[in-house]
Amino acid sequence: MAAELTAHELIAKHRPTLDQALEAIRTRAYWSPHPEHPKAYGENGSLDAAAGKAAFDALLNTRLDLGQPGTDDWVGGEVSPYGIELGISYPHADVDVLIPAMRAGQRAWRDAGAETRALVCVEILKRISDRTHEFAHAVMHTSGQAFMMAFQAGGPHAQDRGLEAVAYAYAEQVRTPGTAEWTKPQGKRDPLALTKQFTPVPRGLALLIGCNTFPTWNGYPGLFASLATGNAVLVKPHPRAVLPLALTVQIARQVLAETGFDPNLVALAAERPGEGIAKTLATRPEVRIIDYTGSTSFGDWLEANARQAQVYTEKAGVNTVIVHSTDSYKGMLSNLAFSLSLYSGQMCTTPQNLLIPRDGIRTDEGPKTFDEVTADLARAVDGLLGDDARANALLGAIVNPDVKARLEAAAGLGEVALASREISNPEFPGAVVRTPVIVKLDGAKPDDEAAYMSECFGPVSFAVAVDSVNDAVELLRRTVREKGAMTVGAYTTDSEVERSIEEVCLEEAAQLSLNLTGGVYVNQTAAFSDFHGSGGNPAANAALCDGAFVANRFRVVEVRREV
Amino acid sequence: MAAELTAHELIAKHRPTLDQALEAIRTRAYWSPHPEHPKAYGENGSLDAAAGKAAFDALLNTRLDLGQPGTDDWVGGEVSPYGIELGISYPHADVDVLIPAMRAGQRAWRDAGAETRALVCVEILKRISDRTHEFAHAVMHTSGQAFMMAFQAGGPHAQDRGLEAVAYAYAEQVRTPGTAEWTKPQGKRDPLALTKQFTPVPRGLALLIGCNTFPTWNGYPGLFASLATGNAVLVKPHPRAVLPLALTVQIARQVLAETGFDPNLVALAAERPGEGIAKTLATRPEVRIIDYTGSTSFGDWLEANARQAQVYTEKAGVNTVIVHSTDSYKGMLSNLAFSLSLYSGQMCTTPQNLLIPRDGIRTDEGPKTFDEVTADLARAVDGLLGDDARANALLGAIVNPDVKARLEAAAGLGEVALASREISNPEFPGAVVRTPVIVKLDGAKPDDEAAYMSECFGPVSFAVAVDSVNDAVELLRRTVREKGAMTVGAYTTDSEVERSIEEVCLEEAAQLSLNLTGGVYVNQTAAFSDFHGSGGNPAANAALCDGAFVANRFRVVEVRREV
Repeated sequence: MAAELTAHELIAKHRPTLDQALEAIRTRAYWSPHPEHPKAYGENGSLDAAAGKAAFDALLNTRLDLGQPGTDDWVGGEVSPYGIELGISYPHADVDVLIPAMRAGQRAWRDAGAETRALVCVEILKRISDRTHEFAHAVMHTSGQAFMMAFQAGGPHAQDRGLEAVAYAYAEQVRTPGTAEWTKPQGKRDPLALTKQFTPVPRGLALLIGCNTFPTWNGYPGLFASLATGNAVLVKPHPRAVLPLALTVQIARQVLAETGFDPNLVALAAERPGEGIAKTLATRPEVRIIDYTGSTSFGDWLEANARQAQVYTEKAGVNTVIVHSTDSYKGMLSNLAFSLSLYSGQMCTTPQNLLIPRDGIRTDEGPKTFDEVTADLARAVDGLLGDDARANALLGAIVNPDVKARLEAAAGLGEVALASREISNPEFPGAVVRTPVIVKLDGAKPDDEAAYMSECFGPVSFAVAVDSVNDAVELLRRTVREKGAMTVGAYTTDSEVERSIEEVCLEEAAQLSLNLTGGVYVNQTAAFSDFHGSGGNPAANAALCDGAFVANRFRVVEVRREV
Repeated sequence: MAAELTAHELIAKHRPTLDQALEAIRTRAYWSPHPEHPKAYGENGSLDAAAGKAAFDALLNTRLDLGQPGTDDWVGGEVSPYGIELGISYPHADVDVLIPAMRAGQRAWRDAGAETRALVCVEILKRISDRTHEFAHAVMHTSGQAFMMAFQAGGPHAQDRGLEAVAYAYAEQVRTPGTAEWTKPQGKRDPLALTKQFTPVPRGLALLIGCNTFPTWNGYPGLFASLATGNAVLVKPHPRAVLPLALTVQIARQVLAETGFDPNLVALAAERPGEGIAKTLATRPEVRIIDYTGSTSFGDWLEANARQAQVYTEKAGVNTVIVHSTDSYKGMLSNLAFSLSLYSGQMCTTPQNLLIPRDGIRTDEGPKTFDEVTADLARAVDGLLGDDARANALLGAIVNPDVKARLEAAAGLGEVALASREISNPEFPGAVVRTPVIVKLDGAKPDDEAAYMSECFGPVSFAVAVDSVNDAVELLRRTVREKGAMTVGAYTTDSEVERSIEEVCLEEAAQLSLNLTGGVYVNQTAAFSDFHGSGGNPAANAALCDGAFVANRFRVVEVRREV
């Protein structure tokens, strides 16, 4: 294929972005090349709000033909959590045809080298970025996120995570030089001299198993880490959230073709209802890398059964916030209220258990009893969500019936401190919108333990009364060790308590946010700076993103010759 | 504990060495701080030849008390492949006492930070280096290596591999800064600002399972990679090769104590005959990292069963050399003869299958038939080992009865091109010393395939007749893919053939040495420059040493606070 975009042009266009990303992961200061504001789009080839909406609408009730080899059928059936049927069909693959075709371009992709691969990935991300408004609707109508969140988390923040993975992958591959001259002195004899050539080689085929709630944000790190390290990537989206990843695959294929590579290096594996192809694909011998976000049970299954592959999983955890004391009671309440409400608590990072001493806490507004803290938090959530338009913009929609069922069952687990309310969405009457429930539990009661020691994914949190802050710290330790945690939060003005919470997080490898009272929330992480998960507790075996996330996606082959 | 050697002193003493190591792994030019020549030792506190020998002799028939907690017995029974009983006993641990004791010092070790940990490791290596002459005897009388090889491979080369792992571990941990200030603009509002603190935390307890043939060379990378990343390390030596690792543990414990750390961060787990504690230890929940060198079957068992741990294995492979053409026939023969003879072929990197076209090869001495090449190689080995003193110095001793049995059985597998001879060792009459056997096989005969497609560890190689060089290349591909390979060698003057062999090595992830005719051998790799194994074929799931070898031995915990 003749490249429409040469390596030279790619370098001129994207090398500065790659260099900035490399610098950002080194300093971990704030940086992003992807604008967060919807109004920032519409120039230099990017779609503005209207064009993005029109592009999304034009996709509805069509067949998304990716031009993939081995397409034997068309499948679809996504229904938006907002109630509309997308009516889009996607290629269903005969994987015995598709997989060999995906391998055909791997040699040229390997030979292109780390820099070209990275810059092609940056170009893919740039094209995705240009279509952020279109992706926002695609993410909204598959995940149930409210528009603004779908726009930001599904757009620039996901693109940031993808670019971060590209930067790590590039840095890892160029740690070893392409060639080396090795000369070893031999006393009076001639030195030994070798020329050595080092080539990063891909492991093989990478499989990305996407999730329902964050198809792009959780999908891009693995996709781009694998692609940038030379692997072909097969994308198996969640059946309820195909569109955002199908568009991603489409763009990747276009860019690969335009840069002179085989578009089949990236392909989609959509499935028929109930087909369950993830298991089949995950155990194919060609599949050497798997990235997965989803339930603990399937993540564990992958780790146990896909033994031919490197498996990177983000599973489930039980996130804890210890509430001990604060010098900003209002700030704490509003910060927590936001964290519990955002996307109806359907984030792997949303706090579930709020551990509060039975005797109450110290605050800048005087001592507050356990019941007062719980009631004040309930009021803060109520206040935040009191206006229906604001509530809709914050909550989004319940992603699936299981979450709704869990929410409804939660009220029966203990005394309800804040009841869940139904909110109507005037724009999308079919949307299931619910405010969070807060249930009081007793940390000393074995019956209650069954509830708070299980992940209850969705808008459910537990205010757990504990005998002392030491008990809270020990319960935190046990929860992280046994159940895992993507996030831990704590409020304390006591440096000794703070130190003991920090120590538990260091020992159990959990990411800790302390005394957040402003506009940063425990459930949000920023690419290039924050790690998402630690990879060191049961919630996830990898962190986004670090050296370990990329280093084993390729191997280095050395060829040495005498000089 | 009061430190006898402060962090400040360690920096002054060893930081330049660490910096040089960091530079070497980046350029991969020749470098080593550990002298290879026996006469280089004897000053600045290092033991000279006589003192090293005396130190070794003083160890014989003693109890090596490491001062470990939980010692419930004394075990030993090593018999040198040179025929002498070492008579040394080692602590046998009640692991339910020892393991908790090993964890006690982990927090202080973690808090010391990456630089101090690295420099303490460099100090341990320095003390080991000073005792290289003593270690040489310890390695010789456990592995059966000849003295000079035990000295070099068991001494400076092993120390190099240890230091290389320390450098990689350090570099990986400092990729993320200790702290970061993160300020995100918010338009007209105040920016969001966080202070972030990043701490590398150990996974937990690391287990090193040592091997018989290269206890230090194969053991040091994992030991030092784990220790430098903050993990306590339990060393489970091979029952026939305890002494070199016991001395290592002893030195590590001394240095840890002198630098103010808990000596129990490194401990020995010697075992009773037939106790088989590796399986018990490997599946303990505290063990989160395992390094293993040895048989494929136990390596596979570890990968399948020690699921709570990161498992790094070097198993077995079938190493191939393709002999197609050469412009230095004599050089090729002498280089191959040396490779086959060194340490009686008891290296995981020794060539096993020499694939030679049935029609013969082109050389600078004219065309040579398959039979001529085989006969000339046999003569070259004979010439190399014609003098008994030289043969003893090169071959060392057969490490165990299994190798001897395989060697004896090999003669029955096909036509013997070179018969194995018994060599007597005047200094150690009990040593079992044998020259290599070369057996001719036919690549087209299914019966022969069973022989050449299995690893036959020891001084056995097969001259396999193939129909064409293309067949050789395809057999190479199949061998690496199905059996794995630590090394591949090839001789060809044809650039197209060279390219096709290179391509197979890139696709199957095997390390390739081309046209070696001088003083570098396919079975030798140099730390800081060559990768040992690729981690991408069945012979090993890790390479020594790269980012992937260290990156998942620790995790980074982030604590973030509002500014």
